Amino acid sequence: MSISVIILAAGKGTRMKSRLPKVLHKISGFPMLYFAIKEAKKISDDITVVLYHEADLVRERMEGYFEDVHYRLQDHANYPGTGGAVMGISCRHEKVLVLNGDMPLVEAEELEKFGEIDADIVMSVITLEDSSGYGRVVIEEGEVQRIVEEKDATEEEKAIKTVNAGVYLFSREVLERYLPKLSNDNAQSEYYLTDVVELAKADGYRIAPLFVTEENFKGVNSKYDLAHAEELMQRRIKKRFMKNGVTMHLPETIYLDADVVIEGESEIEQNVTLLGGAKIVDSHIKSGSVVEKSEIVRSSVGPISRVRPGSLLIDTHIGNFVEVKKSILKGVKAGHLSYLGDSEIDEGTNIGAGTITCNYDGKRKYKTKIGKNVFVGSDTQIVAPVVIEDEVLIAAGTTVNKDVKRGSLAISRTDMKTVDGFYHKFFKD
Amino acid sequence: MSISVIILAAGKGTRMKSRLPKVLHKISGFPMLYFAIKEAKKISDDITVVLYHEADLVRERMEGYFEDVHYRLQDHANYPGTGGAVMGISCRHEKVLVLNGDMPLVEAEELEKFGEIDADIVMSVITLEDSSGYGRVVIEEGEVQRIVEEKDATEEEKAIKTVNAGVYLFSREVLERYLPKLSNDNAQSEYYLTDVVELAKADGYRIAPLFVTEENFKGVNSKYDLAHAEELMQRRIKKRFMKNGVTMHLPETIYLDADVVIEGESEIEQNVTLLGGAKIVDSHIKSGSVVEKSEIVRSSVGPISRVRPGSLLIDTHIGNFVEVKKSILKGVKAGHLSYLGDSEIDEGTNIGAGTITCNYDGKRKYKTKIGKNVFVGSDTQIVAPVVIEDEVLIAAGTTVNKDVKRGSLAISRTDMKTVDGFYHKFFKD
Amino acid sequence: MSISVIILAAGKGTRMKSRLPKVLHKISGFPMLYFAIKEAKKISDDITVVLYHEADLVRERMEGYFEDVHYRLQDHANYPGTGGAVMGISCRHEKVLVLNGDMPLVEAEELEKFGEIDADIVMSVITLEDSSGYGRVVIEEGEVQRIVEEKDATEEEKAIKTVNAGVYLFSREVLERYLPKLSNDNAQSEYYLTDVVELAKADGYRIAPLFVTEENFKGVNSKYDLAHAEELMQRRIKKRFMKNGVTMHLPETIYLDADVVIEGESEIEQNVTLLGGAKIVDSHIKSGSVVEKSEIVRSSVGPISRVRPGSLLIDTHIGNFVEVKKSILKGVKAGHLSYLGDSEIDEGTNIGAGTITCNYDGKRKYKTKIGKNVFVGSDTQIVAPVVIEDEVLIAAGTTVNKDVKRGSLAISRTDMKTVDGFYHKFFKD
Repeated sequence: MSISVIILAAGKGTRMKSRLPKVLHKISGFPMLYFAIKEAKKISDDITVVLYHEADLVRERMEGYFEDVHYRLQDHANYPGTGGAVMGISCRHEKVLVLNGDMPLVEAEELEKFGEIDADIVMSVITLEDSSGYGRVVIEEGEVQRIVEEKDATEEEKAIKTVNAGVYLFSREVLERYLPKLSNDNAQSEYYLTDVVELAKADGYRIAPLFVTEENFKGVNSKYDLAHAEELMQRRIKKRFMKNGVTMHLPETIYLDADVVIEGESEIEQNVTLLGGAKIVDSHIKSGSVVEKSEIVRSSVGPISRVRPGSLLIDTHIGNFVEVKKSILKGVKAGHLSYLGDSEIDEGTNIGAGTITCNYDGKRKYKTKIGKNVFVGSDTQIVAPVVIEDEVLIAAGTTVNKDVKRGSLAISRTDMKTVDGFYHKFFKD
Repeated sequence: MSISVIILAAGKGTRMKSRLPKVLHKISGFPMLYFAIKEAKKISDDITVVLYHEADLVRERMEGYFEDVHYRLQDHANYPGTGGAVMGISCRHEKVLVLNGDMPLVEAEELEKFGEIDADIVMSVITLEDSSGYGRVVIEEGEVQRIVEEKDATEEEKAIKTVNAGVYLFSREVLERYLPKLSNDNAQSEYYLTDVVELAKADGYRIAPLFVTEENFKGVNSKYDLAHAEELMQRRIKKRFMKNGVTMHLPETIYLDADVVIEGESEIEQNVTLLGGAKIVDSHIKSGSVVEKSEIVRSSVGPISRVRPGSLLIDTHIGNFVEVKKSILKGVKAGHLSYLGDSEIDEGTNIGAGTITCNYDGKRKYKTKIGKNVFVGSDTQIVAPVVIEDEVLIAAGTTVNKDVKRGSLAISRTDMKTVDGFYHKFFKD
Repeated sequence: MSISVIILAAGKGTRMKSRLPKVLHKISGFPMLYFAIKEAKKISDDITVVLYHEADLVRERMEGYFEDVHYRLQDHANYPGTGGAVMGISCRHEKVLVLNGDMPLVEAEELEKFGEIDADIVMSVITLEDSSGYGRVVIEEGEVQRIVEEKDATEEEKAIKTVNAGVYLFSREVLERYLPKLSNDNAQSEYYLTDVVELAKADGYRIAPLFVTEENFKGVNSKYDLAHAEELMQRRIKKRFMKNGVTMHLPETIYLDADVVIEGESEIEQNVTLLGGAKIVDSHIKSGSVVEKSEIVRSSVGPISRVRPGSLLIDTHIGNFVEVKKSILKGVKAGHLSYLGDSEIDEGTNIGAGTITCNYDGKRKYKTKIGKNVFVGSDTQIVAPVVIEDEVLIAAGTTVNKDVKRGSLAISRTDMKTVDGFYHKFFKD
């Protein structure tokens, strides 16, 4: 924990083509910046996030996730650029890691490697198959000698495939010494962090390269990059679950938020979506189903069903086209085409096809309570608030708008009448 | 526009194993031949499509998409083969591009490159990792020298990885000169376009190679190729949208027809299908949903819902297991398990779970009209034609078969009765 | 058929993190061991499966699939290891192929190649990009010379990329000679089959390498491997169908059990799941649908519908959010939000939205029979057992609890009442 971290998150991200600032765009359910801070926290107790574009919004969102993070507004008018971003930040530790807020795939263990290298500056580099267009990093005798822009490169330098990955570890001394010496005398009139590297090198400081993976250190600049970064993170999350004993089918078609938990001998089928802190324990989620912020224990859900936030299912079977919302089901069977909202349903109870809890009357929501071993006939409407006690039989098509006592049958039904010959008269023309 | 285009579309495509002629098989919602003509039209005002197998059907389909295209029936009995296909076509321009109707991924900007090369024939070639089995194209000093069949190739020639991609640009002069000289004195007794190349070369015409990508110039010969070509086109379409600011999750699981439009800050989740001219504007389509030929503006749909053709949703929320068909919804909420067909529903209205518009009586379809701020209780059947005015409350389970006036409650309900002790009697045995 | 096969299936598979023994984990609907036996049966009439962990369970499951397979319990206490596994098995043929039960992708035609090589031992080998960590197989003059463990390898040997793939063909003579000579004098105190190779080599037997594909011969050791093996098998199955004329969209999102049959000009859309012997003939299964153990002929299903086991659909149209279970539908339309279970429905019949067959009364299941040209209005509950004859009209919202005669209308409806001004009174507060 002897490293300070500065995370650059000031940019708008014009190529995202969005009102939202770039680092707030989400992958796997969380803003990109969330991941950068989360990983940084594993290796540092002194984190400063540099903001500028929509600074208040970004700060507010991050404060919803993290405590003990410093936020600093870049003096963008006078000191634009990556060099300007890190000016005037007082770091507690001797080593300062400068990270980007749009690299959501970088993990703490990769960041730790920066601190393990003995050098005044550690500069992340990647090897590209085709490095044309990038500034090349000239490495000799294990040290970074210089960074050469494409236009200034000799033929020999152009052949170099090593380029700057944009993450640096500086000794605080180097930063304090050279940040004040940065100049914005360049085409963009910005202050560049790469110039610190150059100035330090000129004075004989040791600059070590750290080879990192392109996959994890690729910055997200467009929605296309965003989708790709999400895919990579999804793969990482799913691999971890599978290695841990979870069975998945066609994992590339499964979507998981980063805070989903899957435990025990669970099976997740193709085309399933698990969102916002869903917790799946020893359960089977069948194809095409969606579970959000609910706990599913020893149960099966789907195919093609949806469990919405605030639900708890234990030893329960949910079939197809069933929506459960904010409900507690223990030992229940609800096989077909139902909406169970704001309800508590107890063990042994069978919910017939087409059952609907009418939990909302246009003004407020009400609760439904159904006891044990109740048989709810098909196409029943349960007008909440209502209590159906244990061992009740509800006839098909009933509108239950009063409480039903233990042991009784509830029915609201008009006798079926038939009209002979009506069919042919009606369809005659 | 100084190029004439001939598109070869006469084949049956036996390996497709289908009654449908090959070029009518669809990818991304349109026949393969549609894409060939569409791209050709961007670079040419003189397009001839050569037909033979199911010629009338193919022509009729294409005429549904395009005007100003010439169709020519190949004299297949007397002049089979690719050479036979282009015989007797009078082209308006000096340059004639010969395209295949089963290459749906070729784009206009790739076709333009043929016209930019100064040569008598421009021959598309691709470089294959493993070229064995293909005729090799011998290129020397920047010119195609000859095409060597596998069986005639020397060891040195066999090492060549450059093969014929099947698309050619001819000067009209070359075509007019050598087409009459083609012979069918070969194993298949067909007239080959490659022989034009050979004859022209022998007379000293200049034949330039144009290296193209295998991915885009691969002909579709089986349903397996078809699926692969569709995947590639899907990727291309989605990439364009994402670059343009659309958020997508697991894009490989999203299916889009080629004429779908997505605008503004829209979000398309995993496993979504958008078909036939769906237009999504500033909207969120959640996982597993299907939208076809409808416009969705500032709305959210799904997860797991379906909007069928002819619908317009504005500022509307559609939840799960809801089907909307040919309906206009403005400022509506329909959260659960409903069928809304042939209806117009106005703002502030809430559609309860299990609501069904009974729009069909077995003879014809009728319309439902629902005003503003209506509260439709769960499991309501609305027997069209019917008008529900503004500010109406429909009780759960009602069969609405008459118009309902502003401000009133509508209800059709039989009182619920209970029979004590019935449950235990019923389940005794 | 002159080869005996021994399949090793004794292991627990600790890294699967499961109560189930490793070889019973399923891919594409069948246990991994099922595929090993199935392929072995194509080349051999003398198959012995070696069991130990959960031997009874594994045997019982396999006996459900196959006859004429020998099972042998490994004497694990005294003779652990792959060498111990094959001890004491009497093989009928001169050649003995030793397979692993956790390699579900190996196909019979690959196994046949072992028998075609003239050698005393044929040893499968694969070439790895990075072979570090594996024992290297030293091949000289076309013969395996020795297997060198990583720790014993010279620098030169370490550069070898050829490693042992774990499948062997032995001459019975070699096995009978060297199995008794195996020693467990090693770190794990196990008897190793590789030692047979070494002993035979020392005595001058000829050991031929057989290069096999890593993809097919990779053993499954974790749920991650399991998902990957399943993906590969899925691709193989789908490719076969597409080559055979089946149209598929985004095939990577389609899931098929290994015993699914798709015939004729069928079209399978993205995100479809076909399970347990589903048979699709000249039909169109639309996105997000699930079909299990049912036959679908000249019909369309979906999008987003489910056909459960025991159903037969002929010339039928199933729309969205429809569940069909154990039902026979001929010439039927069921477009929306219905549950049709244990029913027979005849041609020309239209099932309205929200129709539910109430096939279960809490005690047992009953059948529904609907004749020809019946019009079932929306939100109808059909309380089985019930017979609806031909040409009947059921009004919307009816509870059909009696048989309905040909030509009649059936209706159970309470008149809709309206209460003026109720809305504003109710929503006043």
